[in-house]
Amino acid sequence: MVEQDRDRALLIVDSLREAGDYDIHVIGEQTGLARRISERDPDIVLIDIANPSRDTLEELTLASSPLDRPVAMFVDRSEAGLTKAAIEAGVSAYVVDGLRAERLKPVIDAAVTRFHVFRQMRTELAATRRALEERKVIDRAKGLLMKARGIDEGEAYALLRRTAMDQGRRVADVAEALVTAAGLLS
Amino acid sequence: MVEQDRDRALLIVDSLREAGDYDIHVIGEQTGLARRISERDPDIVLIDIANPSRDTLEELTLASSPLDRPVAMFVDRSEAGLTKAAIEAGVSAYVVDGLRAERLKPVIDAAVTRFHVFRQMRTELAATRRALEERKVIDRAKGLLMKARGIDEGEAYALLRRTAMDQGRRVADVAEALVTAAGLLS
Repeated sequence: MVEQDRDRALLIVDSLREAGDYDIHVIGEQTGLARRISERDPDIVLIDIANPSRDTLEELTLASSPLDRPVAMFVDRSEAGLTKAAIEAGVSAYVVDGLRAERLKPVIDAAVTRFHVFRQMRTELAATRRALEERKVIDRAKGLLMKARGIDEGEAYALLRRTAMDQGRRVADVAEALVTAAGLLS
Repeated sequence: MVEQDRDRALLIVDSLREAGDYDIHVIGEQTGLARRISERDPDIVLIDIANPSRDTLEELTLASSPLDRPVAMFVDRSEAGLTKAAIEAGVSAYVVDGLRAERLKPVIDAAVTRFHVFRQMRTELAATRRALEERKVIDRAKGLLMKARGIDEGEAYALLRRTAMDQGRRVADVAEALVTAAGLLS
């Protein structure tokens, strides 16, 4: 939890202790925030700040790595457009004027769930993109072999596969190396 | 807005009128909700419900189509696990015990932004998946042509492309039709 106000920090810690079995660590100042958070690697970061400027919001977001872990941000007031900026930066919950003891648990639950839903989509997107890229590279490598050796597509693929097996590497990696090498040599 | 309680409905409408230039329509009963919402096709659906059961939550979620438009749901209390269910179903904002006039605008902003961020990812994922699928189908169609006609890969692709151009269709669609036909004929 990132909280400068000692009284609010105590209030939040008390509410959290009532709501569940949390291991809570309070960070009171912003110096070295990114390092402190990453060293501790928490399951969720709660940030409470009265009225962030766009710069502060950006710094806090960067420091808390909202793509690596759920981040819930509580603000008292919010400039127009900051809600949008926070959510686009990946903050899982951006709560304006809503920090009350009874609401902490539902907000944490929502932030954690949203983070996981979002991360799963990102993972799926990355995997699909990689599969597509690999398929393109393998196609190009096959084309290079077919031309260089005068062999057909099946033979080219068999050659890539055999090389990969011999070297204990993936077909896509062998293809990638081949395409790179051909680029250097031509 | 979906709200059974007339007084709360008036309160919300007043707050919204103060917060911005919204065209508001209140639906007071759940009968035919899906049809009514889809006929009106609003920019956002606000749902206020005291304490939804899992079944009610599911019905409301289905009726409001949270993948087609932002949906913000306000509940007074929430059974354990319902927050998770709502967010996994695509609800853009699930606010427990937080319906207050001043908070409506920030919650709406957050819901709209989150919906757009999420929809963009879904669109990107769908496009990448389709590109990958099309590449696979084109590869299979090329393989079929190479075998059936004894031609090489380049000729097979040129044949697919020529056919597509002649028929004013996409290469992927011609390939798809060819793979389907080959499956029927074999």
